[in-house]
Amino acid sequence: MKWKARHLLVLALAVVDGLASGTPVLAQSDPLPSWNEGAAKQAIVKFVEATTTQGSPKFVPPAERIATFDQDGTLWVEHPMYSQIVYCFDRVPAVVRAKPELANVEPFKTVLSGNREAIAKLSMDDLFKILAATLTGMSVEDFKAEAKKWLDTAKDPRWKRPYTELTYAPMQEVLKYLRANGYRTYIVTGGGQDFVRMYADEVYGIPPEQVVGTASGTKYGYTKNGKPFLTKEPKLLLNDNNAGKVEGIYLMIGRRPYAAFGNSTGDRQMLEYTKAGAGERLAMLVLHDDAQREYAYGPAQGLPATKVGTFTQALYDQATREGWVVISMKSDWKRIFTFEP
Amino acid sequence: MKWKARHLLVLALAVVDGLASGTPVLAQSDPLPSWNEGAAKQAIVKFVEATTTQGSPKFVPPAERIATFDQDGTLWVEHPMYSQIVYCFDRVPAVVRAKPELANVEPFKTVLSGNREAIAKLSMDDLFKILAATLTGMSVEDFKAEAKKWLDTAKDPRWKRPYTELTYAPMQEVLKYLRANGYRTYIVTGGGQDFVRMYADEVYGIPPEQVVGTASGTKYGYTKNGKPFLTKEPKLLLNDNNAGKVEGIYLMIGRRPYAAFGNSTGDRQMLEYTKAGAGERLAMLVLHDDAQREYAYGPAQGLPATKVGTFTQALYDQATREGWVVISMKSDWKRIFTFEP
Repeated sequence: MKWKARHLLVLALAVVDGLASGTPVLAQSDPLPSWNEGAAKQAIVKFVEATTTQGSPKFVPPAERIATFDQDGTLWVEHPMYSQIVYCFDRVPAVVRAKPELANVEPFKTVLSGNREAIAKLSMDDLFKILAATLTGMSVEDFKAEAKKWLDTAKDPRWKRPYTELTYAPMQEVLKYLRANGYRTYIVTGGGQDFVRMYADEVYGIPPEQVVGTASGTKYGYTKNGKPFLTKEPKLLLNDNNAGKVEGIYLMIGRRPYAAFGNSTGDRQMLEYTKAGAGERLAMLVLHDDAQREYAYGPAQGLPATKVGTFTQALYDQATREGWVVISMKSDWKRIFTFEP
Repeated sequence: MKWKARHLLVLALAVVDGLASGTPVLAQSDPLPSWNEGAAKQAIVKFVEATTTQGSPKFVPPAERIATFDQDGTLWVEHPMYSQIVYCFDRVPAVVRAKPELANVEPFKTVLSGNREAIAKLSMDDLFKILAATLTGMSVEDFKAEAKKWLDTAKDPRWKRPYTELTYAPMQEVLKYLRANGYRTYIVTGGGQDFVRMYADEVYGIPPEQVVGTASGTKYGYTKNGKPFLTKEPKLLLNDNNAGKVEGIYLMIGRRPYAAFGNSTGDRQMLEYTKAGAGERLAMLVLHDDAQREYAYGPAQGLPATKVGTFTQALYDQATREGWVVISMKSDWKRIFTFEP
């Protein structure tokens, strides 16, 4: 009770202060200063105004205001490789120290060799073995401790900064702008749910319960002292990619988003499902077309092909056909990162 | 923007009004009027005060305030049979009309016969067949339409009221009291997540994204016109009972609850996990010991044994040993239902 009363009082005083001084209660300054004027920025502002202005025919009640964001390539850098994959490769030596018999078993042998060419040729099956060995088979607390150590120390080689600083300033503004207008922002990522939950609150202001990701099962057990704990099992519960994103949204949120943001073919179904709802819906795709300030890859629009965050021409054409908005990093974003001036 | 500004203004005026008139901003009346004075009521109030009073050594930041509630037998009546099972049996004739070949196949034949003795003898395997046939294999929209029809019309034979009116007044008060103190209340139920999400918001003020339940997988597809939709698949994704409740909490919330409420052995692990956290934690179990006003079953404390909501003596002893609080319906609750005077 006491906390709530004080909270209300502070709020009241702030508002009254604003009214008395004649200044507007909420500043009317540009909520998206890192965006150039253009169709993409306009689409966002138009969407927010249509769905949150009382009396608008497209008004959405606050409880239903859900916006979902892919993470890798949409909120932060995913090239040359998803940071979580870098984490998994970095963990291999420690895994082999704990289980020395793996040193001569593939794919661990190849990873330990440091032979980049050989590593680049590893199959998807090999990759899954590395993910399983580095992300499962330990208690959730042990996993968190290891991941935290890495997140605190590992640096991206190009920007020489922690991976968690490589988030896009314009997208951070969209998150804040939506939340300031009553939207709850969710991450819906193909990345590991547990991994992203480690930093999503600090990095994006998105709490763990609003992170939906690829998830393995857990197993309940007891320590020798009878204290219960969960172990991460090598059993895939939710493959949160492609159609799995829609299934994950249905499972974990149970509401259809009003806005969805992605950057690759893995986000197609999430955007389709979002746009298929009644009323005003927003679907946006980030196109990485800025090799100088970040990276350029597609293969849409003649950009170089990639296996990491593929944006096909078919996806681009579908976006055009269905009224999704493609964000050009190069022309829509004034700056890329928050650490830039 | 506009909505938020108006909202703040209304809030401010209400608070200022309260201050000016000298009345307390928040009424200090008893938040749990349906509870008799006693250890159970005291435990709840003590927990809320310890965890929400600024400066308390046990203070919990608002973002971490999570309370989880089992549904059947904890928030509403589960005897003589879980309402969702009644729904599934009621749906069998329609399922057989759609697939006439099932009329001569067990267990559908027995259910259609109406022979209560034979129905009571159906195995768990038979029951799963009925659940799969009545809860999966249709689009999520079709499921919602059917469930809504039933919820709007079906009545409990003893109280002759819709099942959704058979919620416990004292527990409704606990939900509201916790929320008024910054807790987010979740249902964590062995019942079907989709089914409970149909009414949880209206009945308990708990939105869909705060309902964790037994969940089947869904499959993404398109109508002939290219509109995407989800089909409920007969594939169990999360068995939200026993240890599955903890796994469900970890998956869907990603935080350990500070308070957990249950009434049967299926809630044991959820309560263990809750109490294993640091700081002040509350674990409570509803004991159905009131045959006159509701039902009496255990077999704890010499109450009649039951297969629906079993509360064993071992669970009762564990509660005593580990400082969980057992709620006696008979002596702790002034009234059972909100429709009582």
